[in-house]
Amino acid sequence: MKSFSKLIASLKRLPGIGPKQAERLAVFLLRAPDFETDGLVAALREAKAAIRPCRQCFDFTESDLCRLCSDPDRDRGLLCVVSETQDVTAIERSRGYKGLYHVLHGALSPLEGIGPEALRVRELLDRVGRAGATLREVVLATDPDAEGEATALYLSQKLKGGGSFKVTRIAHGVPMGGDLDYIDERTLSHALAGRTEV
Amino acid sequence: MKSFSKLIASLKRLPGIGPKQAERLAVFLLRAPDFETDGLVAALREAKAAIRPCRQCFDFTESDLCRLCSDPDRDRGLLCVVSETQDVTAIERSRGYKGLYHVLHGALSPLEGIGPEALRVRELLDRVGRAGATLREVVLATDPDAEGEATALYLSQKLKGGGSFKVTRIAHGVPMGGDLDYIDERTLSHALAGRTEV
Repeated sequence: MKSFSKLIASLKRLPGIGPKQAERLAVFLLRAPDFETDGLVAALREAKAAIRPCRQCFDFTESDLCRLCSDPDRDRGLLCVVSETQDVTAIERSRGYKGLYHVLHGALSPLEGIGPEALRVRELLDRVGRAGATLREVVLATDPDAEGEATALYLSQKLKGGGSFKVTRIAHGVPMGGDLDYIDERTLSHALAGRTEV
Repeated sequence: MKSFSKLIASLKRLPGIGPKQAERLAVFLLRAPDFETDGLVAALREAKAAIRPCRQCFDFTESDLCRLCSDPDRDRGLLCVVSETQDVTAIERSRGYKGLYHVLHGALSPLEGIGPEALRVRELLDRVGRAGATLREVVLATDPDAEGEATALYLSQKLKGGGSFKVTRIAHGVPMGGDLDYIDERTLSHALAGRTEV
């Protein structure tokens, strides 16, 4: 069945979807009533048409400037740099941050051929340059994995000396509620090195 | 962003897609070039239009009768009953079976409100009734989980006495290449009870 194999091949291109899951999704979609699949296609088309990057932070938005960038109560002296739009949601959920964001839409990965030009790095540097003295701190909140660390290192080099603002990195340490026994040695050594007085 | 939440909600309806994965898929789809998402939508539409259930076995096909049902070399005396189209592929891969199939498209699940009328059970009984003396054996190859076992039990009761054919169930036992130590006790007790002389 050519059209079945083609559907599976298309689904396999989605992130995190392996061959088994693609087959399962294809069977589900074929068996689903038309209104169900039409609903999915309509939602996709609608979102693709309505959503664009925020002019300032490049997070997804339906307006010119996103909800956070246009909120007068956010601290304009703080800028948090993240890889993905989901990271904004995660940090907002933590309620520990009241500044603005900048979404890179990815992380540096020489292995996958993702360089700074594929991310919103140029736009970050321009934005920081324009901010002038209002900007007090840039928080690098990329993921604590190889790509995220490389991105943070690269950005810190590009940003340092670009103004009077501080450049910081989110703390590495033991996650809350964790069991020391189950935490890998790299995290543990970071947690020890970064110990604070109580 | 309403259209973003709507897309995530639509994606969450897919099987095996949790909230995190739905968000990840939505971000991927929004960021993908239009030709990529159009290709996926086209593959879905094409498959939905071309694929239908085989008139005889109810497996997916693009013709009236599927490839296996129309193959004169398959043994018409053997009928293997499975839950899903993927199970046909899996059994074919094993090269251990040369008969025909019947795809139920699901398994009985009182908890989810799936009764025999939601599956191709009526069609199976009709088919077995029509087959007459050519049919020697019906192999119940539903999954070895609670729903699959219940389906096999239900079908065996419906099928027995319906003709001169045998009704069999695939063997339960230790999987090949497994480590006895890691095999759950129910499987192990089935493997012992079903032991064969060497």
